[in-house]
Amino acid sequence: MKKGKTFIISGPSGVGKGTIVKALMEARPDIFLSVSATTREPRKGERDGVHYHFIDAARFRALIEEDAFLEYAEYVGNFYGTPKKFVDDAMEEGRDVILEIDVQGATQVSAKRPDAITIFVVPPSWEALEQRLRDRGTDSEEKLQKRLVRAKVELQAAASYQYMVINDTVEEAVREVSAIMLAEHCRPGERMQLLSEA
Amino acid sequence: MKKGKTFIISGPSGVGKGTIVKALMEARPDIFLSVSATTREPRKGERDGVHYHFIDAARFRALIEEDAFLEYAEYVGNFYGTPKKFVDDAMEEGRDVILEIDVQGATQVSAKRPDAITIFVVPPSWEALEQRLRDRGTDSEEKLQKRLVRAKVELQAAASYQYMVINDTVEEAVREVSAIMLAEHCRPGERMQLLSEA
Repeated sequence: MKKGKTFIISGPSGVGKGTIVKALMEARPDIFLSVSATTREPRKGERDGVHYHFIDAARFRALIEEDAFLEYAEYVGNFYGTPKKFVDDAMEEGRDVILEIDVQGATQVSAKRPDAITIFVVPPSWEALEQRLRDRGTDSEEKLQKRLVRAKVELQAAASYQYMVINDTVEEAVREVSAIMLAEHCRPGERMQLLSEA
Repeated sequence: MKKGKTFIISGPSGVGKGTIVKALMEARPDIFLSVSATTREPRKGERDGVHYHFIDAARFRALIEEDAFLEYAEYVGNFYGTPKKFVDDAMEEGRDVILEIDVQGATQVSAKRPDAITIFVVPPSWEALEQRLRDRGTDSEEKLQKRLVRAKVELQAAASYQYMVINDTVEEAVREVSAIMLAEHCRPGERMQLLSEA
């Protein structure tokens, strides 16, 4: 039976990863979008199991001990991680999995799962990224400049990703991600096995 | 400016490569389909520059001397080859190029152009391939059995191809080839360059 594959999607803050993933999930409800576990408190409107799996710090540490995360990190006193089991179960069912994680997380996952496919989302230009961050209107000028510097650093890491998707329009970006997913299912290893089973 | 890429399509006789390429060209008239040069006589209905570039043996040998072929071979006393210039010109214009060539030809092209992407077309099953060869009705039973044996040998070479497309339906096969072509344009090397030009 055809097995699912894991696709890691990273990209600088403000590039529109979330919008692309949302549009992709609408077009392809068979895809499994990994939900992170976190120790931080739910914000208003956030639902357990949908936005995050909300667990306490003791449970999170126990899961780290059990090697139950594909990747995890601590930000401002809270833990965030990708639970291994849901990802593996979905792939066994033949579903492709999307992990929307940062460059550090992607490095951890790639070490554990070298067959995971890595996709980095880039803006069509620096001007476009700056404009998008300004349009969000959530950052001070100082914070915005920091985000831009961080984006430039992250883009250097992007060269080590297998694919780079330009978020010019959401439709085109989704078309590219979908093409990458289909193309990666056309690899000889997987296909030779299907043929021998046929 | 975006440059084109070369895609090599191989597969056993009877697998339906020609049908897939024809359907792909109809959907994507921007693609450049490489036309082979040959020293054999034109058959009825064959047009110079469309089905083949018909040239004489002296000219073919001169072109070999000039290293003007990406690959060439001799079959039953006639030469067949892929002229380098048309392929390079098309890629410079930003057009993707399709080379429909056999495993030996693909090996020669890959040596000269390691960035060419290799796609092997396989039948959904051996029974399906045998049925297609029978339906063509052009082969004696002996010749048909020889083709099947050769197909099994070729399929071993297929494992060294980057992609494998199953020709279950033409539509699905064209969708897969198109996805591979788009995905291969999402490689960081190419994209980093576009970004730096933006």
